[in-house]
Amino acid sequence: MVFHTTLRVATRGKGLYPVTRQVSDWLRKQPVVSGALIVFIQHTSCSLVIQENVDPDVTLDLRDFFERLVPEAGEGYRHTMEGPDDMTSHIRSTLTHTSLTIPVIDGVMALGTWQGLYVFEHRAHPHQRIVVLQVMGE
Amino acid sequence: MVFHTTLRVATRGKGLYPVTRQVSDWLRKQPVVSGALIVFIQHTSCSLVIQENVDPDVTLDLRDFFERLVPEAGEGYRHTMEGPDDMTSHIRSTLTHTSLTIPVIDGVMALGTWQGLYVFEHRAHPHQRIVVLQVMGE
Amino acid sequence: MVFHTTLRVATRGKGLYPVTRQVSDWLRKQPVVSGALIVFIQHTSCSLVIQENVDPDVTLDLRDFFERLVPEAGEGYRHTMEGPDDMTSHIRSTLTHTSLTIPVIDGVMALGTWQGLYVFEHRAHPHQRIVVLQVMGE
Repeated sequence: MVFHTTLRVATRGKGLYPVTRQVSDWLRKQPVVSGALIVFIQHTSCSLVIQENVDPDVTLDLRDFFERLVPEAGEGYRHTMEGPDDMTSHIRSTLTHTSLTIPVIDGVMALGTWQGLYVFEHRAHPHQRIVVLQVMGE
Repeated sequence: MVFHTTLRVATRGKGLYPVTRQVSDWLRKQPVVSGALIVFIQHTSCSLVIQENVDPDVTLDLRDFFERLVPEAGEGYRHTMEGPDDMTSHIRSTLTHTSLTIPVIDGVMALGTWQGLYVFEHRAHPHQRIVVLQVMGE
Repeated sequence: MVFHTTLRVATRGKGLYPVTRQVSDWLRKQPVVSGALIVFIQHTSCSLVIQENVDPDVTLDLRDFFERLVPEAGEGYRHTMEGPDDMTSHIRSTLTHTSLTIPVIDGVMALGTWQGLYVFEHRAHPHQRIVVLQVMGE
């Protein structure tokens, strides 16, 4: 059995946006008990991460770390016509994840206690992001 | 249903080599309508990325960023016997991707409009690289 | 057919711990001939990598590179209450992998000759880590 849907996530600038609840709400309605969930983001300037779901400071520190690791200025980028935050967004998405595969056991994602799913927005301005969810199994 | 093949990609030094067309040409011939495509590269000194497929400057900026992020000289690497570009290649492949999973919907990869698949070569000299493609579904 | 298990990995400080043998030993006992193996680690302060399985210096150089790339001191992290190695662990796990998907062909993982699977521990003290293995196919 294979089922899919698309999730729309409205972002408001750089940072991590939690999507665990939307994903698990959809998954609960699918009849797959054992299988795999694929989470796939259809963009190259934002990405996906699984990170701690307790202390919001973790997500702020993550955002700030990538700001330092992939600086907007002084790097001599060629691709600049879409703004100073565009090439850095491509690099930051490459350093994180476009697709994640999560085991489904007893009908739910087999996440650890402290794990949450996030869309990591790398652009400065608001965007509508599309995440494809697909579950496959029996 | 599960089908697989291997793709051979000839690289000519560091940089990103597009493989979207070869992958979608193979996928089109498989009878899977809904499922998942696994793209897996059988090496540890090159990797896979999904990135923008329009402006070739993006791939050049990506290549150059990884050259700065993981410098070949002055880092005191232990593993040097295969040349100065070998340990850096292992690190650069770890920072990007060895496997990607892409939803297949209506018989095609559910990529976003601007997304393309690339082999990211991290070694300086030409190589023959092997990518395993596997599609599973119904 | 879908089968899963959990692997417990005892880590003794920062570094890469090989798990290829445990994973392939379990896989050999499953009746799946063609399909996909999902390897998923249920933590946000350690991660998974596929890297060279020959020269142990590669894993030491990898560990040391991440120590330099994501420094413990002087970065002004907010999330510090779990020790100086905790926020850096979250970042290092984000830069590597929480889930890997590996094609299964003829009943075994389709790894390249030099590829091995590792748990990458980012915390300084010993931990018990849980890795979920799931194989799906026919």
